[in-house]
Amino acid sequence: MHKTTDATMTNPSQPASSVRAERKIATREALIRCGVALCTERGFHMTGIEEVLKRVGVPKGSFYHFFSTKREFGEAVIDNYSDYFFRKLDRVLSDESQSPIERLRSFTLEAREGMHKYQYRRGCLVGNLGQELSGLDDEFRTRLESVLLSWQMRTAQCLVEAQDAGEISKESDAAELAEFFWIGWEGAILRAKLSRSSAPMELFANMFFKKILG
Amino acid sequence: MHKTTDATMTNPSQPASSVRAERKIATREALIRCGVALCTERGFHMTGIEEVLKRVGVPKGSFYHFFSTKREFGEAVIDNYSDYFFRKLDRVLSDESQSPIERLRSFTLEAREGMHKYQYRRGCLVGNLGQELSGLDDEFRTRLESVLLSWQMRTAQCLVEAQDAGEISKESDAAELAEFFWIGWEGAILRAKLSRSSAPMELFANMFFKKILG
Repeated sequence: MHKTTDATMTNPSQPASSVRAERKIATREALIRCGVALCTERGFHMTGIEEVLKRVGVPKGSFYHFFSTKREFGEAVIDNYSDYFFRKLDRVLSDESQSPIERLRSFTLEAREGMHKYQYRRGCLVGNLGQELSGLDDEFRTRLESVLLSWQMRTAQCLVEAQDAGEISKESDAAELAEFFWIGWEGAILRAKLSRSSAPMELFANMFFKKILG
Repeated sequence: MHKTTDATMTNPSQPASSVRAERKIATREALIRCGVALCTERGFHMTGIEEVLKRVGVPKGSFYHFFSTKREFGEAVIDNYSDYFFRKLDRVLSDESQSPIERLRSFTLEAREGMHKYQYRRGCLVGNLGQELSGLDDEFRTRLESVLLSWQMRTAQCLVEAQDAGEISKESDAAELAEFFWIGWEGAILRAKLSRSSAPMELFANMFFKKILG
């Protein structure tokens, strides 16, 4: 078997075809990660394939080696962000060193830090693409809505734990509270972008915890 | 003075130059109204000048007769929507046949009807362009934020009237309540677009009136 220079960089006993397949997967993932960053800042239509390729260092024209269409790329970008965000939410809401409500509050504080880190330019990919695409494209719309529903369900689970722990009333509907939270939280992220400040996130969270859950 | 066919359509004693100026203003306004509709559905970058001209029936290439740049067009579109929406909000919130809180509730009901009318495709121009442009363009960002602030201030005025009428506690901060309302309401509009349903607007409004104002 012909041994390529690339193959010598990895396990020398590995066949070159397997190395190429691994490299292809790694490059595809790098393209998706770059797509997440650009789409979160600029939206889907303004994210140019050429710029994504250039940033990742992939030759012009080889995009279709990785994705059959720009739509397929967009779907992979949404799925990647959805998984990444769910894991982050799940990590914070599973932290048993805090009470359920403290965990949700920690999530809002971490999100404020995240917004600050990117100077309030990025916000939430699902909120951005939701505004941009939901009126234009039914497949993207339902995909984005189901991402929000998954975050909402994970949050509702945390609020049920808060009810079990006696932190909030058992009379309220945890699913509705979680839906209210995500409706308002996406609005707060938008407003943080517009005002270049975490103040709207702080205001929303404070009143949510005090008056909606309180 | 040369009398054009156009001039004969209006007051025959009016000079042709004045008729032309009026027609120019009317055409400019038609372009802006078309821009509001398209930008609300698709966003700014995806709204093509050529389509706007075609829809209004203006010859290709004459756009720059009306606007020096696409940015100037975008600013006129935002200003037009801002004025239109403020007048609508002000009309509902000034209706003395209802109590201040009933007026705000009427506003939310009217907005739900408006969303339904356009099959949840349009939503709010300021929310849409805010997501699209706030990370990319500081001038648009500050213009959009100040539009939201104007709606928020008008809403705060209504909530002060509600305090004076004894409908809500004087201890709460009317400006903060109005800010919370607009943060969440923009989120509810986004979610209504994503779910093609007014349920998120209904949920947000119900909990806002019951738990935040209650």
